[in-house]
Amino acid sequence: MAVANYDFGLVGLGVMGRNFILNVADNGFTAFGNDLDAKKVKALIKEGGNTEKVNASTDAKTFVDSLKLPRKIMLLVPAGKIVDTVIENLLPLLKEGDIIIDGGNSFFTDTDRREAYLKKKGIHFFGAGISGGAKGARLGPSIMPGGSREAYQHVKPIFEAVAAKYKGEPCVAYLGPKSAGNYVKMVHNGIEYGLMQLTLEIYDFLKKAAKLSNAELHQTFKKWNEGRLQSFLVEITSKILAQKDDLTDNHLVDMILDKAKQKGTGKWTSQNAMDLGIPVPTIDIAVSMREISALKAERTKADELYDRPMVKPLDKKDAIEKAEKALYFAFIMAYAQGMHQLADASEEYGYELDLGEIAKIWRAGCIIRAALLADITEAYRSEPRLQNLLLSKSFAEKIRSTVDAARELVSYGATNGIPLPGLSNSLTYFDAYTSERLPLNLIQAQRDYFGSHTYERVDREGIFHTNWHDNV
Amino acid sequence: MAVANYDFGLVGLGVMGRNFILNVADNGFTAFGNDLDAKKVKALIKEGGNTEKVNASTDAKTFVDSLKLPRKIMLLVPAGKIVDTVIENLLPLLKEGDIIIDGGNSFFTDTDRREAYLKKKGIHFFGAGISGGAKGARLGPSIMPGGSREAYQHVKPIFEAVAAKYKGEPCVAYLGPKSAGNYVKMVHNGIEYGLMQLTLEIYDFLKKAAKLSNAELHQTFKKWNEGRLQSFLVEITSKILAQKDDLTDNHLVDMILDKAKQKGTGKWTSQNAMDLGIPVPTIDIAVSMREISALKAERTKADELYDRPMVKPLDKKDAIEKAEKALYFAFIMAYAQGMHQLADASEEYGYELDLGEIAKIWRAGCIIRAALLADITEAYRSEPRLQNLLLSKSFAEKIRSTVDAARELVSYGATNGIPLPGLSNSLTYFDAYTSERLPLNLIQAQRDYFGSHTYERVDREGIFHTNWHDNV
Repeated sequence: MAVANYDFGLVGLGVMGRNFILNVADNGFTAFGNDLDAKKVKALIKEGGNTEKVNASTDAKTFVDSLKLPRKIMLLVPAGKIVDTVIENLLPLLKEGDIIIDGGNSFFTDTDRREAYLKKKGIHFFGAGISGGAKGARLGPSIMPGGSREAYQHVKPIFEAVAAKYKGEPCVAYLGPKSAGNYVKMVHNGIEYGLMQLTLEIYDFLKKAAKLSNAELHQTFKKWNEGRLQSFLVEITSKILAQKDDLTDNHLVDMILDKAKQKGTGKWTSQNAMDLGIPVPTIDIAVSMREISALKAERTKADELYDRPMVKPLDKKDAIEKAEKALYFAFIMAYAQGMHQLADASEEYGYELDLGEIAKIWRAGCIIRAALLADITEAYRSEPRLQNLLLSKSFAEKIRSTVDAARELVSYGATNGIPLPGLSNSLTYFDAYTSERLPLNLIQAQRDYFGSHTYERVDREGIFHTNWHDNV
Repeated sequence: MAVANYDFGLVGLGVMGRNFILNVADNGFTAFGNDLDAKKVKALIKEGGNTEKVNASTDAKTFVDSLKLPRKIMLLVPAGKIVDTVIENLLPLLKEGDIIIDGGNSFFTDTDRREAYLKKKGIHFFGAGISGGAKGARLGPSIMPGGSREAYQHVKPIFEAVAAKYKGEPCVAYLGPKSAGNYVKMVHNGIEYGLMQLTLEIYDFLKKAAKLSNAELHQTFKKWNEGRLQSFLVEITSKILAQKDDLTDNHLVDMILDKAKQKGTGKWTSQNAMDLGIPVPTIDIAVSMREISALKAERTKADELYDRPMVKPLDKKDAIEKAEKALYFAFIMAYAQGMHQLADASEEYGYELDLGEIAKIWRAGCIIRAALLADITEAYRSEPRLQNLLLSKSFAEKIRSTVDAARELVSYGATNGIPLPGLSNSLTYFDAYTSERLPLNLIQAQRDYFGSHTYERVDREGIFHTNWHDNV
């Protein structure tokens, strides 16, 4: 019979799971792992070095019996049916008050379903988004837990210890009831899609318009990462651009196929934003561009049918300066859209989200960490009911001084056939969101014309319908 | 006991239902209506003029018993639970072999569910999208039926008689099994969203950039409607722009509030396209723009915080010429995206769609009818396996001669702060779809860097992963 003296359990010893458990052990807690794969169990025990601190088993009963009450069991298995299977396997072995934490990218309605199901059995269920990749899991991720506030107290010391730190503050906080954690992580990934698309557009623009070499591109992103654009994605872009290929004499980035894959969280963000009626066009187009990139065979055929405009070369220094501004502007738009979606989802799903707290735990550890998040944290701290970052005075300053560069790049891209759709959707988001009057009065007229859908007026209250004259 | 001698039954005597039944009667069939609202029943009987041809009742049994076998019963009730309720009410009164036709905008998976359910009871169920608004229902709509091919033979004579005609050919055809009809109608509406957004952008551009008056705008759209842009939406836009307000001295369009409503079909098109992995950015942004338009209070606040660029005035004649080209270009992109989605959905859901046939029945009667649809019909007739309109030689001609105008307008809009997002997403769709090489190699590098998601290479087969150097 196993001795129940381990602080933390983890099912799923892939890279993320193994790294997370070693991180837990590094921070003074004892941890026990479980995986059906005996090799992974062995590897963890070896890497842990001391089975009193880190142990593991392929047997679920041994695993569960090794954990202190209330048990804290994290699942790091692929989202989908596997999560349900693992839960069903654990369930007969658990005691009332035990806590299961789903650390994967589960769809938020799945989390709601599981939480309600387990509540009836006396088990607390947490959806806790984890961001930071393999390295983050090992050295400190950003953790986004949602579920029962009381049960969170049992997990809190461990999560606060293992999470990334920003100026000493842990990048984890209790976010809200039910699926709040998975929802916030989903939108985090949506923003990530936006930022990645914007980054590659600027890379492409500087390469094609200002003819920057990979070395110059590396230096540019490296320098930007020391300024207001400082962020994980800008940082790794600079590093990627410096990487040589092992198989040829080229830079590795030029040898990678331009077919982007996706695992669904960006798509879910866009789809759910549409259900909420919240515009996130920078995220939408990032999803579309991954889709277009996947149509490589069609693109190759289409390319033969059309000529591309001659690219008008630009001065390097000037192009870099403007690109920095445009990227900064568009990054703000991507975060603004995601935060707007979170604000609305919080109302719709009863998450009681604190947007300042969310921005705060994104400042380190996660993929979208950036200097900008410290500013966003501040903006929501000083105005907790801020509807949109664009309405913040401090952000208005940042936007006013950079929007013209975005205009120049979008205009240049359209003229010269360099697609900058993330940037252009960020700009139209700005132009439309800041327009008191938009031309969508015409849509309401059309809808009333063909479908008698009625309209409102600018000069008086009420709902109106017109019998439109036909013979003009 | 009622005499079972009416050819066609219809439940739901709102404007669409009443008009459709009168259309059926005009074409030599006898028809019987049913509605819970006695006033609507009375109004139809009165308008029908002869109860031997058009009759109606509030009583479901009287209604069902009045219809010839196999009964052909169309539902024109709001999509959602009401459809299920009406079906349940009818079910005990029906005989094996009877046919129920849902003429509303039901979501396609609901149609699949209902079709499977009713099949077990020996009842044929059709989802038949109907487009053309109230006037179309009365004088000839475009009808998009999907379901059992055998059962369709019973409905065919009536549908072919009442449908709109294009050069004598009826705008109706059996489209495919299961929910094919509702799916095609959904994408029709998605394209409609795109075309409406594009039309308003061009209206806004000509108004703000070339300072066209409403009278000049009316004339411009009217003239365009005599050329290659000929289409229902361009036509009604010209008529809308001529309409005077009854309550003030202004043009009505200027008195309509710029908050656009939506009923969901455009959103469903975008969301489902994402599930399929098919890019439809012109439709996506049309959905987003309706959402932004609804945020009127936020827009008003945001407008006060930011200055708009001075608009550089353009020569009227030149602006009109370029606007016509840009609109034509973008219309093609909207249709191309919708047809692409249909092609993929046909594979995914087993609809066996004939895209040429679909374009053919859209040539008259429906909201997206346009001269372009005759060309699209031809393109798919000559190349039935065409993957995308952009790969058609005849369309390549049209696109090559208009894309530069789209470039100019997008560039102008970005510089001058006039949001043209539908146009710009159409342009980036074109630029990206026709690029053999896109910069999304960087996304794959980033994904491999932070998540070990692996990548493919341009120079050899296989799946690769790199241990990225960190200290550069």
